[in-house]
Amino acid sequence: DKPFMLIAGPCQLESRDHAMEMSHALVEITRKLGIGLVYKTSFDKANRTSVSTSRGLGMDKSLPILAEVRERFGCPVLTDVHAADQCAPVAEVVDVLQIPAFLCRQTDLLLAAGETGKVVNVKKGQFLAPWDMKNVAAKIASTGNHNVLLCERGASFGYNTLVSDMRSLPIMARTGYPVVFDATHSVQQPGGQGETSGGQREFVPVLARAALAVGVAAVFMETHENPDCAPSDGPNMVALKDLPAQLATMVAIDRIAKANPIF
Amino acid sequence: DKPFMLIAGPCQLESRDHAMEMSHALVEITRKLGIGLVYKTSFDKANRTSVSTSRGLGMDKSLPILAEVRERFGCPVLTDVHAADQCAPVAEVVDVLQIPAFLCRQTDLLLAAGETGKVVNVKKGQFLAPWDMKNVAAKIASTGNHNVLLCERGASFGYNTLVSDMRSLPIMARTGYPVVFDATHSVQQPGGQGETSGGQREFVPVLARAALAVGVAAVFMETHENPDCAPSDGPNMVALKDLPAQLATMVAIDRIAKANPIF
Amino acid sequence: DKPFMLIAGPCQLESRDHAMEMSHALVEITRKLGIGLVYKTSFDKANRTSVSTSRGLGMDKSLPILAEVRERFGCPVLTDVHAADQCAPVAEVVDVLQIPAFLCRQTDLLLAAGETGKVVNVKKGQFLAPWDMKNVAAKIASTGNHNVLLCERGASFGYNTLVSDMRSLPIMARTGYPVVFDATHSVQQPGGQGETSGGQREFVPVLARAALAVGVAAVFMETHENPDCAPSDGPNMVALKDLPAQLATMVAIDRIAKANPIF
Amino acid sequence: DKPFMLIAGPCQLESRDHAMEMSHALVEITRKLGIGLVYKTSFDKANRTSVSTSRGLGMDKSLPILAEVRERFGCPVLTDVHAADQCAPVAEVVDVLQIPAFLCRQTDLLLAAGETGKVVNVKKGQFLAPWDMKNVAAKIASTGNHNVLLCERGASFGYNTLVSDMRSLPIMARTGYPVVFDATHSVQQPGGQGETSGGQREFVPVLARAALAVGVAAVFMETHENPDCAPSDGPNMVALKDLPAQLATMVAIDRIAKANPIF
Repeated sequence: DKPFMLIAGPCQLESRDHAMEMSHALVEITRKLGIGLVYKTSFDKANRTSVSTSRGLGMDKSLPILAEVRERFGCPVLTDVHAADQCAPVAEVVDVLQIPAFLCRQTDLLLAAGETGKVVNVKKGQFLAPWDMKNVAAKIASTGNHNVLLCERGASFGYNTLVSDMRSLPIMARTGYPVVFDATHSVQQPGGQGETSGGQREFVPVLARAALAVGVAAVFMETHENPDCAPSDGPNMVALKDLPAQLATMVAIDRIAKANPIF
Repeated sequence: DKPFMLIAGPCQLESRDHAMEMSHALVEITRKLGIGLVYKTSFDKANRTSVSTSRGLGMDKSLPILAEVRERFGCPVLTDVHAADQCAPVAEVVDVLQIPAFLCRQTDLLLAAGETGKVVNVKKGQFLAPWDMKNVAAKIASTGNHNVLLCERGASFGYNTLVSDMRSLPIMARTGYPVVFDATHSVQQPGGQGETSGGQREFVPVLARAALAVGVAAVFMETHENPDCAPSDGPNMVALKDLPAQLATMVAIDRIAKANPIF
Repeated sequence: DKPFMLIAGPCQLESRDHAMEMSHALVEITRKLGIGLVYKTSFDKANRTSVSTSRGLGMDKSLPILAEVRERFGCPVLTDVHAADQCAPVAEVVDVLQIPAFLCRQTDLLLAAGETGKVVNVKKGQFLAPWDMKNVAAKIASTGNHNVLLCERGASFGYNTLVSDMRSLPIMARTGYPVVFDATHSVQQPGGQGETSGGQREFVPVLARAALAVGVAAVFMETHENPDCAPSDGPNMVALKDLPAQLATMVAIDRIAKANPIF
Repeated sequence: DKPFMLIAGPCQLESRDHAMEMSHALVEITRKLGIGLVYKTSFDKANRTSVSTSRGLGMDKSLPILAEVRERFGCPVLTDVHAADQCAPVAEVVDVLQIPAFLCRQTDLLLAAGETGKVVNVKKGQFLAPWDMKNVAAKIASTGNHNVLLCERGASFGYNTLVSDMRSLPIMARTGYPVVFDATHSVQQPGGQGETSGGQREFVPVLARAALAVGVAAVFMETHENPDCAPSDGPNMVALKDLPAQLATMVAIDRIAKANPIF
């Protein structure tokens, strides 16, 4: 029944300066709207379509920057992990460890993330039914850590296309864990541009509004001051300048949904 | 930018008395909420899963009842047609002719419906991409009749399951024709009970809210005073008694979406 | 355990002369290979993507031509029907009535086809699970006519794409009715070219071989002496000149499959 | 144009004795049929549906057993790796490293596998289009290792279901790398039994025949002397006693396909 949290930031951590500018801007935007922010950024794009595209700064250079964002702006920080041995060092710096969708059934990674005691945000695999996320959550919970978020980010629908099934939100909520809707990757067209993934940025607010009308605890939206020049996920990131107006409507819809829960 | 219309009624026309009671109740409910009603009911279920299930009263007995509903309550009436030669007689009584999803590419039926000059509500086939509805609309428009509604009712997603792609709403809206969201048949599980189709009534408000948050001209919701005893589509009809509360939230979401259009 | 039958011909009946040439060529090709031929052609394309594309000669001009093919070459003839009142007149001329996939649940059409006593070949809807075809067959059988063929022609797989699930062949065979594999429409890309459907002719032999290796009673393959100039379904028709070599391998695979049934 | 190789064995490495018995039996069966064998077994099931199910013997206990199979029977051995640091030690023992489907885009794992110089069999992700496997292969090839096998194992088709698209076999073959068809996991019903995945063993020969009729370099079939008691993938493993008859027909189909390539 609380207002939704916004999980936002640029797909890749590009530089210290870029991270400071983006987090500063997002802190301001969300403060004005009265919603919470979790700053999201990735230090390594470990599963890009092609081997020749940029992977990012790497863990060692990135963690101090994430720590600085957190300290400077007081906002929680989220990043994704790709291997079990990354969980402990990353957990020293961030508030939320994120499990990528392709890896949502890798037991060792889930256990290592759970053992840090941090919040774990698991993306639902594009190949997974929403009711099967209860088994994923149970792997994390088996470590004694019940700080689990379950995140919808689209299901495979033919080739190079995802579809967002809004029924998955209440289905995953039956686990008792908060549900997140990732509006950015849900509009991805995986592999759809040959050597990179395509996307449909114009549908981000379409799906974000729909999810909030149904009822979610948080919305995940990647953003960039110049998405068309971003090193990854540009086609599906929202321009920073468009975010305030989109969020304002989302806040209004969320308020109605929270006051009138379906379930 | 106008409030959404509700297209509602019981799946089958069961009897004159039942039609009068249902339409009376729906007129009252929508009047209180300040939204328009189109009364929907079918005289023939022409494509049921099994040959041994009930098809309905038939056209001859049903048309006078539809005419009576319309005259008595002053509300527009909608029913579906299954063959080209039904269009003209049905059009004498109803305001909206509906083309079933399976038949959305049958040229003769679309042309016959168009030629009546009435509003034609075409359900998008479960097998059709939203951008392909422009060709369907063009068939009707080729008769000079531009009173076309395009209706989303779910896309095939594996076997015995549909998924509602909320992106289809703005995609179909690009045609310039009003878009309807059918929240009842979108939660159908086609053939899912062996000899009848199953459904998931609990997800009707989930999908209806999502569609309204995106922005639609009308929502289609079948309803019944006792869905579990209805002769068809019982599993996915909403109980009449639950409708007012569901609609109240939907009206609030619609108001925000209409004041803040995405496109 | 008998060799597969070939159901073949051009998508549309283009002219008397074209029908005579095509049927003559196909009779020769299949005679040499020792397999049976059912000559297929359509008198009306009743559900084309766009209203501005060619529909064909029409029923009245076509039936005498079909009758002539049948008499002249002694081969059974198949054509598709789109409305209940077409069944009786068409049945006077042809051996097999075909129900289009979109119409496979239209009860009146199935009953009218069944009542002719002719063989009825029903295409499985792109939206239908293979186990649900037993209800479709039961509608026809309710007329006392058990001469039913069940035909796989692809299932919806995302937008503008079909996928052929080879498991559907033994699943439909459990009904006891012979199963046909339509290799032509299974490679269709519905609506995939904007105003017409696309196709992938190169995959016709891929899917035809796969289906025969599993075991089917008949294969449906549309063919044309110049597919790229055909008025409909050109992208997925096989060139007549390529047919003999493709069929020769198919015959060899069929022989092994029939000698070693899986079920 | 060479006969297909069989990649076979029990899903999990259960014990040394079991591995010796199974590999011995499979060597005998394939020798009689004149086809090559690659013995497959897993030392760790790293992504099981539920945390409470058996994962296997582990790498340290398993590698000596795999080495013994290889030495004793002279057959190449295949196993799957789940983390980059497993690749080098596993490569000292096995001939083929296998990349699980969920991990087919993890760059570090692909590079580590490629750098061993061993053959790498990559399963196509259930979420991936067949034409996108060229990017996966290119990641491995970037290490200078071109010993790549591309393996079809089903694509997501709605929830809890996979479908095998036979077109993917020639599409992946366009890369120039040999194509493998995994008939076991293609009939898996992911998560379909609540806490374990279901399967449809009866369709293994259906899909294996279909793939061979199209043309593949190898078929992957897990087998067990008592599948219903196997610790994992029991529902989709073929009983060892049924294998010889199934393979005999497969060999006959392969012979025809190899003599008559489609492409």
